Amino acid sequence: MRDGMLVIGTRRYSSWSLRGWLAVRLAGLDVREQLIPLADNGQTAAIATLSPNGKVPYLEHNGIAVWESLALCEYCAEQAPGLWPADARARAYARSIASEMHAGFRALRQAMPMNTGRDNRPLAGGTTPDIDADITRIDAIWTEARLDFGKGGDFLFGAEFGMADAMFAPIVSRFLSYGVSPSAPAQAYMAAVRAHPLVAQWYAQAADEPVAWQQSRFEDIA
Amino acid sequence: MRDGMLVIGTRRYSSWSLRGWLAVRLAGLDVREQLIPLADNGQTAAIATLSPNGKVPYLEHNGIAVWESLALCEYCAEQAPGLWPADARARAYARSIASEMHAGFRALRQAMPMNTGRDNRPLAGGTTPDIDADITRIDAIWTEARLDFGKGGDFLFGAEFGMADAMFAPIVSRFLSYGVSPSAPAQAYMAAVRAHPLVAQWYAQAADEPVAWQQSRFEDIA
Ligand SMILES: N[C@@H](CCC(=O)N[C@@H](CS)C(=O)NCC(=O)O)C(=O)O
Ligand SMILES: N[C@@H](CCC(=O)N[C@@H](CS)C(=O)NCC(=O)O)C(=O)O
Repeated sequence: MRDGMLVIGTRRYSSWSLRGWLAVRLAGLDVREQLIPLADNGQTAAIATLSPNGKVPYLEHNGIAVWESLALCEYCAEQAPGLWPADARARAYARSIASEMHAGFRALRQAMPMNTGRDNRPLAGGTTPDIDADITRIDAIWTEARLDFGKGGDFLFGAEFGMADAMFAPIVSRFLSYGVSPSAPAQAYMAAVRAHPLVAQWYAQAADEPVAWQQSRFEDIA
Repeated sequence: MRDGMLVIGTRRYSSWSLRGWLAVRLAGLDVREQLIPLADNGQTAAIATLSPNGKVPYLEHNGIAVWESLALCEYCAEQAPGLWPADARARAYARSIASEMHAGFRALRQAMPMNTGRDNRPLAGGTTPDIDADITRIDAIWTEARLDFGKGGDFLFGAEFGMADAMFAPIVSRFLSYGVSPSAPAQAYMAAVRAHPLVAQWYAQAADEPVAWQQSRFEDIA
């Protein structure tokens, strides 16, 4: 008997699922995974029957319901110590950038949907000023966090991969997929995130998903 | 000597500022307010010189920088007890709906910008299905939260106005401005939020703002 369930979408594409799944795994919650393949029209009927906001990720843990990736991060951080930085100034920074990710970077997110099966292939039409502004801001966030709070570790707030890293992991994936080259420190961070055992596991499981789950709305992006 | 500053935009329009200001006032932080009138083109140069994400609200408190309304809620909730529900199930619900607000309801937010000077005047062109879906979901959230967790109090999680209420207060303002009529329980909630002393204070201060700060991009909405 496990402690509940985590509902996620197709691993190849579902960037928000990756965030929630990382939060749950980092906290070590013992929940079964229920994967619902995402529908090609962006409205997966089966998700709406389970999740209050009609979206994945959705977590039920010991009778407690949690939706929205950032709320999963907060819930999971309450279950296991150390997933937000202990220092108050670093923690405020981590939560500020996690919130910025939760609501922002829309131009980038729309133009470059996560696709773990796409490797280093730039957008045929190039980027727009809005996309470039998102990339510049993300580069600044990663670089500044590691300089001010990273203590020489591989991740944003040191040697341990935490909630802020979980929120930005799908951006790392996009940068790798679409051949985005930020500053050298940001690229070092990207390599560390990609090599993290949980991220590597997500990629491996995504690669095992049936070809029939591939969706034109993600694959047709030049 | 105060403990820092809170940067906000024009009270009449700045819905995110209202959320952050409520969080700061609920926690009783002793910070001075720096108000920057919002520019008509949606990019206020003075904000970018102060705030890391180029947006308001932005808080500096005892040398700690915090931006994004939801991160301000988390920071302020750490400073004062009781602003998230004490019960774990209620707290997860509160954080889930606060996150849903932080990232969502885009159709509603775009069609009906906050304008504390507009009273009960529906959109001339009526609503769209996307706006209606946002209204329906918000009504469900308010009604369910109060039924499951409200203990008969006026607010979402009982007798005290908390962080989830702060996140939804600008939606209450919009519903009142654009004559949106949700269910009777939701309307009772709206009346309680509007009458809360902090919300009433925000409205009064907004009414005192110079006419010169009024912006066509908000006022021209039929
Ligand atoms: N703000 C939400 C966004 C979640 C989201 O948009 N999830 C997508 C998949 S990545 C979804 O469930 N879409 C509905 C669908 O595909 O039916 C969160 O942080 O969890
Ligand atoms: N996700 C942000 C949104 C903040 C935001 O968009 N603020 C608007 C004013 S309500 C802003 O600063 N816009 C930039 C400008 O007007 O120059 C938050 O939660 O704080």
